[in-house]
Amino acid sequence: MGATRLTPTLRWTGDSIEIIDQTRLPAELVLIDVRDTATALDAIERLSIRGAPALGAFGALAVVVGLDEAQPDSLDAARATLERLRTQVGNARPTAVNLRWAVDRTIDAALAEPGVANVAQMRQRLLDEALAVGAEDALACAEIGRLGRALLADATVIATHCNAGRLATAGLGTALAVVYAKAAAGEPVRVLAAETRPLLQGARLTAWELADAGIDVSVVADGAMASLIARGEVDAVIVGADRIAANGDTANKVGTYAHALAAADAGIGFYVAAPTTTIDAAVPSGECIVIEQRDPDEVHRAGSSRHTPAGAGAVNPAFDVTPARLIAAIITDAGVLQPPYNHSIARALAAAGGPG
Amino acid sequence: MGATRLTPTLRWTGDSIEIIDQTRLPAELVLIDVRDTATALDAIERLSIRGAPALGAFGALAVVVGLDEAQPDSLDAARATLERLRTQVGNARPTAVNLRWAVDRTIDAALAEPGVANVAQMRQRLLDEALAVGAEDALACAEIGRLGRALLADATVIATHCNAGRLATAGLGTALAVVYAKAAAGEPVRVLAAETRPLLQGARLTAWELADAGIDVSVVADGAMASLIARGEVDAVIVGADRIAANGDTANKVGTYAHALAAADAGIGFYVAAPTTTIDAAVPSGECIVIEQRDPDEVHRAGSSRHTPAGAGAVNPAFDVTPARLIAAIITDAGVLQPPYNHSIARALAAAGGPG
Repeated sequence: MGATRLTPTLRWTGDSIEIIDQTRLPAELVLIDVRDTATALDAIERLSIRGAPALGAFGALAVVVGLDEAQPDSLDAARATLERLRTQVGNARPTAVNLRWAVDRTIDAALAEPGVANVAQMRQRLLDEALAVGAEDALACAEIGRLGRALLADATVIATHCNAGRLATAGLGTALAVVYAKAAAGEPVRVLAAETRPLLQGARLTAWELADAGIDVSVVADGAMASLIARGEVDAVIVGADRIAANGDTANKVGTYAHALAAADAGIGFYVAAPTTTIDAAVPSGECIVIEQRDPDEVHRAGSSRHTPAGAGAVNPAFDVTPARLIAAIITDAGVLQPPYNHSIARALAAAGGPG
Repeated sequence: MGATRLTPTLRWTGDSIEIIDQTRLPAELVLIDVRDTATALDAIERLSIRGAPALGAFGALAVVVGLDEAQPDSLDAARATLERLRTQVGNARPTAVNLRWAVDRTIDAALAEPGVANVAQMRQRLLDEALAVGAEDALACAEIGRLGRALLADATVIATHCNAGRLATAGLGTALAVVYAKAAAGEPVRVLAAETRPLLQGARLTAWELADAGIDVSVVADGAMASLIARGEVDAVIVGADRIAANGDTANKVGTYAHALAAADAGIGFYVAAPTTTIDAAVPSGECIVIEQRDPDEVHRAGSSRHTPAGAGAVNPAFDVTPARLIAAIITDAGVLQPPYNHSIARALAAAGGPG
């Protein structure tokens, strides 16, 4: 398993962003060349790129693409363009706090730079900051992997939900960074990937990226994971996060909470792995996290054909909230956070900086 | 909503069994004419007919079909045929205790009948008993509906899993009998149906039969149900059962246990609705229930196309076990059973008879 031979989830080409179209995986590896704002917003909306950290790295670069597309003829025009992009790109997915944070960070860096004399210099400052977002994310992934491997030295069978791997970040992932770290160290590791209806990110993306890296992975229906946990077939559950509240309550892809309940009932550890950029200190608890409701049609279908009858409705929340009381530890790039989380999170944010 | 205008899930035509092919729902209503053992076993294996009580009623009639097909020329030959069918049909799905029970009951009734003088008389005794299995199931459904409606008078939004409705029984269902009883009484009722991967019985069958009956139904991904329960959007969870142990532990379609955990965490009631024929008093607890492992290909696919990568495995347990401690009550045709279940179940079985 070597990260160097793997196709990057997103890459700056010099004048555009090249991303893997995750809606086409695992059937085919198709790249999208993103060189205008409409394509960038469409990629976010269609989940061609997804995963909170990857969205941050992508959103930051999308601001550069948006500025290039607008071709402003003055610094004032450039500033106006950036404020438009701050709203357009920053709000493209409401639950992913990293997107908002990375867009703000990149734009604020360019606007605050005192030595900027023209649009080209502003654009360079913007690009430097956007690339830094991705580079820091890759480093954070590596650190999460290192810490998680040490924390879960005795765990061989890891259950996970959705995709919190290299397809979700600019590095080797969050939850799956732990798996990659174990595999790189030659330790035995096997992943049970919950398929993650309705969009099947676990079955499509987690299974693809782990099989691609030569790691043992089996897919299970979301509802089957709890029974495998109850029967002692799982050593630990590790998931990523879309937003972590100041008290540790964690919003992640819908279906996560049920695995946490099962882990608690069986007495095994349920872990969240996320960069500190995923923590939103402005949100005191999970009850305050707005849950994105997605198109009911995603539930009516699996693949191309509709399988529900015409007379049935559907409810399709994108995320759920796992209460902090069910989380054994939060593995971050600023250390392994333990309960009580309001204290450990505040300390980690003070040390690391971040969107909070 | 009137039961009379609804297409029966299974019906004795006089010389064959006519069943709805549930693998074709909800796209089209196709009937299968079952007039030989191979077709009967194939219908069970492919889940054209499923649901523990319906399997019992079907299996009993399948023995009649099997005897007709064999055309034994003596009572001894007929007895040998019945013993072969007892194994073939009775073991076609190991977790569904009703199938085994109904087949044994029907064959034992024919074999034990003292006045049988020829094969035709034995066949008539067999048919009478098989039809009685279905008729009693329909009555049990009606009683479960009546008792459940009284027990859950204040519940409007009912969550359920898989299909425990008229498509799963010879009557109006078990879990859904409660819903039909509420609707028939003019009470407001809305059903949240977990889609039930991998075979989507909730999305296809529960949604179809409720919409067909004019009842408000919305489908949700299995993993989303826990979050809807946590957010107070569900009043009660009611599921069917494939096998209930003597202590109340309940095997049902995989995914059930996670809903029970969520109900317990939110403090709402989780109910099992099943005829007493589903209770297997010979099984002391859920740990002793053998869980059928189905073809991993069901997980690799949703509908026709495979969505997992070639390198990924899959694990596909058909059922899970919900421990009795998570079950608020078991609604049966012999009354509403309350904890401690070892006592209430023993009393109910003593009063009602059944497969135990």
